[in-house]
Amino acid sequence: MHYPASISKLIDSFMKLPGIGQKTAARLAFFVIDMKEEDVIQFSRSLVEVKRELTFCSSCGHITDVDPCYICEDKNRDRSTICVVQDVKDVIAMERMQEYKGLYHVLHGALSPMDGIGPEELNVQSLIERLRDDEVEEVILATNPNIEGESTAIYISKLIKPIGIKTTRLAHGLPVGGDLEYADEVTLSKAIMGRSEI
Amino acid sequence: MHYPASISKLIDSFMKLPGIGQKTAARLAFFVIDMKEEDVIQFSRSLVEVKRELTFCSSCGHITDVDPCYICEDKNRDRSTICVVQDVKDVIAMERMQEYKGLYHVLHGALSPMDGIGPEELNVQSLIERLRDDEVEEVILATNPNIEGESTAIYISKLIKPIGIKTTRLAHGLPVGGDLEYADEVTLSKAIMGRSEI
Repeated sequence: MHYPASISKLIDSFMKLPGIGQKTAARLAFFVIDMKEEDVIQFSRSLVEVKRELTFCSSCGHITDVDPCYICEDKNRDRSTICVVQDVKDVIAMERMQEYKGLYHVLHGALSPMDGIGPEELNVQSLIERLRDDEVEEVILATNPNIEGESTAIYISKLIKPIGIKTTRLAHGLPVGGDLEYADEVTLSKAIMGRSEI
Repeated sequence: MHYPASISKLIDSFMKLPGIGQKTAARLAFFVIDMKEEDVIQFSRSLVEVKRELTFCSSCGHITDVDPCYICEDKNRDRSTICVVQDVKDVIAMERMQEYKGLYHVLHGALSPMDGIGPEELNVQSLIERLRDDEVEEVILATNPNIEGESTAIYISKLIKPIGIKTTRLAHGLPVGGDLEYADEVTLSKAIMGRSEI
C-alpha cells in the first residue's frame, strides 16, 4: 500500500496500540488528518506528557503527577485501612466504586515463578514498612482471584501475621447481574460456602 | 473519576477518535504509559507531522507530502484515463486493487444540496481544466453508488459532454462473495440489467 510517508508512520504508531489492526489504524489516521489542528497538537502533547510527567507515588505506588499521590495526601481518607492491589488500574476500579475510603498499596504485579516474578520484583517491602506505622488496623488483600493473585495474597498475609494486623481478602461469589447457569463450578462452590442469611 | 491530569487529557484525546469510548480510551492511555518512550515520541511526532506535512496534490487533489503527488508524477501510469472519486480514501481503495493504472481526480465530497454542498464546494473546476489537455481519452466516474454520488456523476458527465471525452461509470451488480438471497432489489435489478454472456 502506498501512503505518503507521514500517514504510514502514524498508521504504524496506531497499530502498536492493543486491539487496533491495519484497517482501524488507517481509519484513525485519516480521521486525524481531518481533525482540528489544536486537537491534534493537544493529543500529541498529552502522549509525551503522560510518559514524562507521571511517576509512582513513593508511599503507595499508585501512578501520579504529584508525590505523594492525591489519595495518600487526602486528609479525609481512613488511614487505618490499606487495600493491596496488583495494578494501578485496580486502584481506579476501586475508586470508581466510590465506597472504599481507605488507602491503597500497589504491588505492580503478582508472584509468578514461571515468569520469573518473585517477591523482590513486587512492591512488598515498602508495604511492610508502612505497616510499622501504628495507624494501620486492617490490610485488605485485593489481588486478582486467580492462581498468581491468590498465592500473592497468601504470601503477603504470612508476612503480615507477625506484625499482628488484621488481614482480609475480598469475597468470592456470583457477580451481580450474572447468571447462575453460566457460573463456573469453583465460583459456585465459593458462593455456597460464603452464603449469608437474609 | 480521579485520574492524574495528564492521563485525563490523554483519555480525552483518545475519545475524540471515532469508535473509541471512555473505557477503550482509558485502556489505550494506560497502554501508552507502559509503552517504550521512543515509540510514544514517534507516535506524538507523527500525529503533528500528518497534520503539518500533508497537503493536497495541486493536480489531482489526492493527499500527499510532495506536490504533485506520486501518482501524478509516476511516468509509468496511463495518462489517458482519469478516475474521478469523492474522497482520498477512495483512491487508496482503488490502488489496493492494483489493477487500475490511470490517474485520479479527488472531488473532496459529493453534491448534497441538503448539506449546502454545491458544485463550487467540490474540486470540479480543476478537473475540467485537466481535460483540456489532449492526452485524456476517458473519465471514469467512480463516485459512490448512492444518491449524492449518482447525482454528482450525472452533473460531471454533463460538464464533460461538450468537451467530447468518453465518460464511464463503475458497474453495479452483486458484490463478489455476496449472497443473492440478501441482495436488495435495486442491486439485483441492476445486476440483471447488466448481465453478460458467459
